[in-house]
Amino acid sequence: MTKIAQIQFKPILGNINLNTANAEKLISKCNNSDIIILPELSDTAYNFPDRNYAIEVSHKVNENPFAKMLMNKSEEMNTCIISGICEKEGQYLFNSSIIVSKGKILGLYRKIHLFMNEKDIFEAGDGLLDIYKIGDIKIGMQICFDYLFPEPWRILAQKKADIIAHPSNLVTYNAFKVVPALSIMNKVFIATTNRIGTERDLNFAGKSFLCNPNGEIIAEASKLKEEIILSEIDFKLSRNKMITSRNHVFNDLRPDSYH
Amino acid sequence: MTKIAQIQFKPILGNINLNTANAEKLISKCNNSDIIILPELSDTAYNFPDRNYAIEVSHKVNENPFAKMLMNKSEEMNTCIISGICEKEGQYLFNSSIIVSKGKILGLYRKIHLFMNEKDIFEAGDGLLDIYKIGDIKIGMQICFDYLFPEPWRILAQKKADIIAHPSNLVTYNAFKVVPALSIMNKVFIATTNRIGTERDLNFAGKSFLCNPNGEIIAEASKLKEEIILSEIDFKLSRNKMITSRNHVFNDLRPDSYH
Repeated sequence: MTKIAQIQFKPILGNINLNTANAEKLISKCNNSDIIILPELSDTAYNFPDRNYAIEVSHKVNENPFAKMLMNKSEEMNTCIISGICEKEGQYLFNSSIIVSKGKILGLYRKIHLFMNEKDIFEAGDGLLDIYKIGDIKIGMQICFDYLFPEPWRILAQKKADIIAHPSNLVTYNAFKVVPALSIMNKVFIATTNRIGTERDLNFAGKSFLCNPNGEIIAEASKLKEEIILSEIDFKLSRNKMITSRNHVFNDLRPDSYH
Repeated sequence: MTKIAQIQFKPILGNINLNTANAEKLISKCNNSDIIILPELSDTAYNFPDRNYAIEVSHKVNENPFAKMLMNKSEEMNTCIISGICEKEGQYLFNSSIIVSKGKILGLYRKIHLFMNEKDIFEAGDGLLDIYKIGDIKIGMQICFDYLFPEPWRILAQKKADIIAHPSNLVTYNAFKVVPALSIMNKVFIATTNRIGTERDLNFAGKSFLCNPNGEIIAEASKLKEEIILSEIDFKLSRNKMITSRNHVFNDLRPDSYH
């Protein structure tokens, strides 16, 4: 069994030092977790007044104190941590998810589908749908609004993701209608980790959840509270891609017939 | 507003004359409906003991008395009818859905994804994902188990389907977890029309439903009863593909980034 911790908290806009300190305290509580997942843009928070503000408060990955804290904690706790961060790269900003393990950055995913005014702030990601291995567990990443587009989830599952970490700053509950379907159709675990709080009139929806490959919500946080939800999961469930004794999630696909 | 009728009933295995008579009576009750949708394999029923039995009780489309009745009723009632039928074509059998309007066959869809022992009975369809126009309404078709594979639904929506008729013989309620997601992701109406009853130890799940492009179930039948569910729908909802004022179901897709 693998222990998953999802940290639902309230990052404060532009206050990376406070967010780093708060996230560090919460991560420290996740003893013995194998994988710890935080929300989208946990370092800078979300609702920037404009692009200049976002550039001012964001960092290159290698200079980001929040990312540095994640690396340190992952080493100290011998664990894997995934979190949304605001990534500055040259003149560009990306809405990214970082995965760190035992003190090192394993990789980054840059959000492909930008929501609303994010289009004024960020470049869209270039779609590196990589899989990261922690022991024999295969992890993929998607961010928030990506959930409305089934294509990358399919590809991550075809690349044998056991679990897709889904750092989010959701403002509606539509993910409860869509994510279970993505889980069933791909037979994969999905960990939607959301934030709480209000930011310049934007109310975040809380209710982080973990969905199993049968489309069942096996852990769910509250709407308004800072909270860590813990799950123990068995990846046998995501590795058995049989739908019935004669039907298979991928072998039954008939791409030549989709026209 | 467009009036949709979904007929949930109990076809009897191999008894095409009885099924034709029963379906005709139910169709006659759908006064003023613009589109009438029946379950999968409404003419022959579902759970054939073997392929030889299925061949014996099935017909070429042009010689099928059930299909002939649909054509006659569609002319008499000036309406469009969609139903699952067992289609014999040469030495092959297909699990098909037929669409008829004003006395004529508009087209056929042959089920692409065969469930369990259907693989012993039917050929898999060749995937003609056509759209059929009734006035200015664009209709696509999928059958039962196809719902677990999001690819053809995407294509039908990209071909501007307003509604996807989904004749079914479902035995579980997983469609309630998946179909609303297909509706939201594609902003399309989906009419899942299921059967009731038991056939050689197979219990059909009933609960036919109609889902709108927001993923909301707007009509739902009971689990065990023969029933006609009626909905009035406004296709403005399926033609507005904006998710937000700055996000679009298809324009926001980034196929070059899915790798």
